[in-house]
Amino acid sequence: MYATMLYGAGDVRFEDVPTPKVQLPADAIIRVTASCVCGSDLWPYRGIQDYGRPVAMGHEYCGVVEEVGSAVKSLRPGQFVIGSFFASDNTCPHCQQGYHSSCDVREIVGGAQAPLLRVPLADGTLVATPEMPGDDLVPSLLAVSDVMGTGWFAADAAQVRPGSTTVVVGDGAVGLLGVLSAHLMGAERIIAMSRHPARQAIARQFGATDIIEARGEDGIAQVRELTNGIGADSVLECVGTQQSMDQAIKVVRPGGYTSFVGVPHGVQFRGEDLFFGHVHLHGGPAPVRRYLPDLIAKVWDKSINPGLVFDLDLPLAQVADAYKAMDQRTAIKAILRP
Amino acid sequence: MYATMLYGAGDVRFEDVPTPKVQLPADAIIRVTASCVCGSDLWPYRGIQDYGRPVAMGHEYCGVVEEVGSAVKSLRPGQFVIGSFFASDNTCPHCQQGYHSSCDVREIVGGAQAPLLRVPLADGTLVATPEMPGDDLVPSLLAVSDVMGTGWFAADAAQVRPGSTTVVVGDGAVGLLGVLSAHLMGAERIIAMSRHPARQAIARQFGATDIIEARGEDGIAQVRELTNGIGADSVLECVGTQQSMDQAIKVVRPGGYTSFVGVPHGVQFRGEDLFFGHVHLHGGPAPVRRYLPDLIAKVWDKSINPGLVFDLDLPLAQVADAYKAMDQRTAIKAILRP
Repeated sequence: MYATMLYGAGDVRFEDVPTPKVQLPADAIIRVTASCVCGSDLWPYRGIQDYGRPVAMGHEYCGVVEEVGSAVKSLRPGQFVIGSFFASDNTCPHCQQGYHSSCDVREIVGGAQAPLLRVPLADGTLVATPEMPGDDLVPSLLAVSDVMGTGWFAADAAQVRPGSTTVVVGDGAVGLLGVLSAHLMGAERIIAMSRHPARQAIARQFGATDIIEARGEDGIAQVRELTNGIGADSVLECVGTQQSMDQAIKVVRPGGYTSFVGVPHGVQFRGEDLFFGHVHLHGGPAPVRRYLPDLIAKVWDKSINPGLVFDLDLPLAQVADAYKAMDQRTAIKAILRP
Repeated sequence: MYATMLYGAGDVRFEDVPTPKVQLPADAIIRVTASCVCGSDLWPYRGIQDYGRPVAMGHEYCGVVEEVGSAVKSLRPGQFVIGSFFASDNTCPHCQQGYHSSCDVREIVGGAQAPLLRVPLADGTLVATPEMPGDDLVPSLLAVSDVMGTGWFAADAAQVRPGSTTVVVGDGAVGLLGVLSAHLMGAERIIAMSRHPARQAIARQFGATDIIEARGEDGIAQVRELTNGIGADSVLECVGTQQSMDQAIKVVRPGGYTSFVGVPHGVQFRGEDLFFGHVHLHGGPAPVRRYLPDLIAKVWDKSINPGLVFDLDLPLAQVADAYKAMDQRTAIKAILRP
C-alpha cells in the first residue's frame, strides 16, 4: 500500500510500504476512513525532533475494523472505531485511574496516515460507534481521536467549572477545542489568545467571549485587566513552548489551575514562580481513551462539532501538501482521506 | 524590650529594641506566650539568604491581645490568639478562595521571637481560642501558627483522601506534621522518608506505616517496591531543595498529586518530567489562616497534639542556642518562652 513516511526535515514521502498485518493476538487492523496531521508531527517535520531514520507518520484515525487477532473479544470486522495515539489495555492500575496514556503496557500507534493501520491492544484501545456513521460525522469523530480529546483533557486538568474564568493560550486545533471544552464545562468567560482572524472566528463559534491578540507582558496585562486584577481560574496551555508556558503561569490567579497538553520542548518551570504563584499545575499526554465514550456520544447526537477545525480536506496522496500548509499556518488542520 | 535580631550568618543577638506600638488602626499588639524557630529562619541563619541588614526574627506566635487599633472589631485585649506568618484581610478575592497567603494586602509578620509583637490586619489575621488555654495546650496552639498549618496544607494540596498511599519527603517539623495531617485525612499507608531515629519515632507516633531511610535512586526504588510499582497517590515535599523535589516528583503515580511547601531555593522543574509523569503539582506558602479555626478546634478538644515536634524548650533569652540546635539538627524544633 501507499502510505506516509517522514525521511527528515521537510521530507514527507507518500510511498509503497508493506501492508500491516496482525502481529499479536490483541491486534486489530483497521481500514482508515480518515486521518490527519497533528501539531506534534510538525516538530520532526521542522527538524526539531530527529528520529535518525524514516518514520511511518500519523496517530489520529478512525475507520472500519478489517481484521482482529485471536485474543480480541469486543470488536468484530465491519465496526467503525476510533482510538487514541497511545494504545492501552484499559485494565492496568493507571488505566483504572483514568491515565490510559501512562498505561503500563502502552504502545504508540504510528502509521495512521495510510489506508490500513495496525492497532495494538485493540480491546483496550478502540471504541466502536453505535453504527456506521454518515460522512458528515467523520471529521468530528476523527477529531475525537486526538485534538478534541486533548482539548477536553486541557479543560478537565485546568478544573474548568460552571462559572469559571478561563484563558486558552494557543489557537491551534487543540487550543480551539480547549475553548469548546471549556464552554461545554460551563465556563462563563473564555479568553482566547490568538492573532489570526480565521482562528478567532472559530474560537468565538466554540464559545470564546474575549480575544486577546497581544503576547508577552502586554498579553498578561490584558488578561489581568479583563479579570479585575485577579487572574483566571483556569488556564489551558496548548502550545508547549517556554514562552506560552510563562504566559500561562502568569495569568492564573493564586490557587487557580494551569494545564499543559502540548509536548513541552525544553520547557523549565522556576520553583519560585509556581510556589509564590500558588499555581495548580497538571498536564501530560492526554488520556484520550478515558474520554472517548463520552465524546463519541456527544458527536453522535450532534451536540458538538469539533470537526470544524479541519479547514483543509485532501486526498491522502497529497499528504506532503497537508504538512506544508500546517507548517506555514495556512491551514489549522488538514484531514486526509485514503 | 529584649528581642531577637539576626545580623548575618550565624549571628543571632538578643538585644534591646523599641517596643512595638499600634501603628495603623487595623493593628493589634500581642503579648507573646510562645514563639519558635522555623526551618525557613535557617536559610538566612546559614547565609544562604542575605537581607543585608539586621532583621527582627520570628513569624510563629501565639499570645494574649495587649492592645488593638481603632479599626479592630473582632478582638479585644485579654483574648488568646493565634495568627499566621502572613497577615491577611480575610476578605479579598484570594482570601475568599482560601489563599490567604496570597492576600492582595498581605504583610509578612516579623519579630515574633520577642515578648511583644505587632500584627497588622488583626481582624483578618488572628483567630481567638474559646478561652484562655492551659499551659499543656500552648505548644500545640503555637504549632498551628505555622508548621501544623503548613503540614496540613501539604496533605491537602497533595489531595490525601481516605485510603490514599502517601509519601512524605522531609522529616523536619513540617514533614512530621504532614504525616499527622495525612493520617487525619485517612491515608491508609504513609511512607515517611527519614534517617533519624528520633524523628522516625515521632513519624510513627503521628501515623507513619513505613519508614524509608534511603535517598536518591535507592529511595525511589524502595517507594516503587512498597507501592507494587505503581507509585504513591500523594507525595508531600517538605524540604525545598532540588534533591528532595526530584525525589517527590519521581515517586508519585501517573495522575497522582505532589505538593511542595518548603520555600524552593533554586529549584527547577523539567517540563518533560511533569508532562510524562502526569503529575499534579501544587504548593506555595501555606494559607494557614484558612485552616486556623479547624486546627485550633482539633487542638482544643485534644484530638491532635502537634506540639510533640517541640523537643527543645528554652527561655527566649537563649534564642541563639535554639538556632544552633536546629541548624545542627540536634533539635527538631525549639519553643521559646519570653
